[in-house]
Amino acid sequence: MSRFFSDKYKKLVPYTPGEQPKDTQYIKLNTNESPFPPSEKAIIAALEETHNLQLYPDPECRKLTEKVAELCGVEYENVLMTNGSDEILNFAFMAFCDSKNGAAFPDISYGFYSVFAELNNVPYTEIPLKDDFSIDINDYKGINKTIFIANPNAPTGMTLSLEQIEEILKTNPDRVVVIDEAYVDFGAESCIPLTKKYDNLLVCQTFSKSRSMAGARLGFGVGSADLIADLNTVKYSTNPYNINRMTMAAGIGVLNDEAYTRENCAEIARNREYTTKKLNEIGFITTDSKSNFIFAKHPDVDGKVIYESLKKKGILVRHFSKPRISDYVRITVGTSEQMTALLFALKKVLEENK
Amino acid sequence: MSRFFSDKYKKLVPYTPGEQPKDTQYIKLNTNESPFPPSEKAIIAALEETHNLQLYPDPECRKLTEKVAELCGVEYENVLMTNGSDEILNFAFMAFCDSKNGAAFPDISYGFYSVFAELNNVPYTEIPLKDDFSIDINDYKGINKTIFIANPNAPTGMTLSLEQIEEILKTNPDRVVVIDEAYVDFGAESCIPLTKKYDNLLVCQTFSKSRSMAGARLGFGVGSADLIADLNTVKYSTNPYNINRMTMAAGIGVLNDEAYTRENCAEIARNREYTTKKLNEIGFITTDSKSNFIFAKHPDVDGKVIYESLKKKGILVRHFSKPRISDYVRITVGTSEQMTALLFALKKVLEENK
Repeated sequence: MSRFFSDKYKKLVPYTPGEQPKDTQYIKLNTNESPFPPSEKAIIAALEETHNLQLYPDPECRKLTEKVAELCGVEYENVLMTNGSDEILNFAFMAFCDSKNGAAFPDISYGFYSVFAELNNVPYTEIPLKDDFSIDINDYKGINKTIFIANPNAPTGMTLSLEQIEEILKTNPDRVVVIDEAYVDFGAESCIPLTKKYDNLLVCQTFSKSRSMAGARLGFGVGSADLIADLNTVKYSTNPYNINRMTMAAGIGVLNDEAYTRENCAEIARNREYTTKKLNEIGFITTDSKSNFIFAKHPDVDGKVIYESLKKKGILVRHFSKPRISDYVRITVGTSEQMTALLFALKKVLEENK
Repeated sequence: MSRFFSDKYKKLVPYTPGEQPKDTQYIKLNTNESPFPPSEKAIIAALEETHNLQLYPDPECRKLTEKVAELCGVEYENVLMTNGSDEILNFAFMAFCDSKNGAAFPDISYGFYSVFAELNNVPYTEIPLKDDFSIDINDYKGINKTIFIANPNAPTGMTLSLEQIEEILKTNPDRVVVIDEAYVDFGAESCIPLTKKYDNLLVCQTFSKSRSMAGARLGFGVGSADLIADLNTVKYSTNPYNINRMTMAAGIGVLNDEAYTRENCAEIARNREYTTKKLNEIGFITTDSKSNFIFAKHPDVDGKVIYESLKKKGILVRHFSKPRISDYVRITVGTSEQMTALLFALKKVLEENK
């Protein structure tokens, strides 16, 4: 730390991204990436744009925004595109919380929420999940805080129903409720239609997972025109040209190939169900995940040991050294070949730790 | 504005980017882009990466950072890569200013500085340039504020010498001095070597102008390892994967083609000198610009009229409706063909406004 660093950040503990190994060739099941390559249409669109890189991108991101609005069944003014969904989440913390208006989110969820809160000097409450890792919506009724809920939740993969989300929205009419749908495409139901009924709902999604574009950095938010206008005020005061030309083009390309996205999501869902069943057969306890990862623990082997043993065998999964979930590992669902290799390796790990 | 927008931003007036026309084909001399296409090496590197978009980029941006460090004659830990140089500037406002530690910058400079200050609740002083638009360094000596100076300055293109910058650094040892070198490659001297001597110096640069990559979004900061560590704390608390894979690869590609960059910069400098001479011959008054733009006014025609008349003739330049500079237009230096078209159109404008 330099002697010039502002007091306000001296205690800030940044987010730790999952390992991104550079050298060894791992089966990478640790950061919820898609095992499938990006759509050919995304690739072609991106490479066409490489010839125009000397010109700034459209700061309004108009064509892509219109395309996303069409996909979501909303209007242009209901959508804001961002440099990954982390950016829209940070913008929401900036716009709809402050030192007087705190935030609330589950104690076990995306680890970045508390970092965004700290960064923006927002007091926050981490509301414990129930023992079975489900969210008790009674904990969120009328709490007068800006609420952030990942649906499906991470790292559990468990979902709330639209009725439950509506209950939270209705009982907090004066505060924004942010539903982070990063993993919605793998089996959960999106609450985007509710944005027409509730002016306090912001839904965030990403192209990183279901659309195989983690490396391109593209996310978005959907909400009332007024909410989106506020988020645009923040964007134009932060980084107006937040999305580069190639990513913008790739985003349009992949949306012209929805069948490919849907096929990939269906394949991931099948591999998730198959792998979960096989894991249960060898004694693993799993949550009811509707996302592209499995959250699993074994009564005989600690989560950290599973993580470390798998890493030695060339397979990366994610372990969180955090109360209540340190027994678990989070396993990204990959191709059926990757899942076969995982199951084979896990059987070995169990044998070695008998 | 929604009823949920935080009080702290209710008066925030965002930055207004230059026009990015979508439909009509203009000769675009309004946002200081390069008239030259990106390096072939940048294009090839970017398109190779389109096949890996399903994987997150390296959050450390290691290979590109090493390459930039080599170019700048510094070490890896002295460099932070960002999503355009707006991002490094905002990070600097976040990290090295706050409500108690104000900022200072010239009254006529990059219009985003005051927006970043407002966004981050930083009190700021706009120090008037002298009547000839030069910076009086005596105004900056020992002022105990975080100082932001564009060198060359925008929209004047005028420069400070390294000796003058050193004077500012020496007399403000307890505050960071940010030198924004977005336009340094067109004829000014970089003060990056001074980062080894002064731990309070942060230098910001961009790939947008001299490297024809405005559409890719890539900027960086150079400073002491401690300053860069602070900026990394902010980055990892904001958007760890801030740079996408294609841009990262293109950045490495263009740095493998420095001769192309140098040739383009030399050509721009030649076109600037030629165009300035021709403008002077028809009565324009110009500043001594060392950048890729010319700042010019004419005693007979108002800046706004010049801007509007040129737009009607299919040429976009930039006009600022701001005290002291509303007589002027800022003209990006393009190819010699574009400059010939500009001079031809300007002669017509003068005739029409006799």
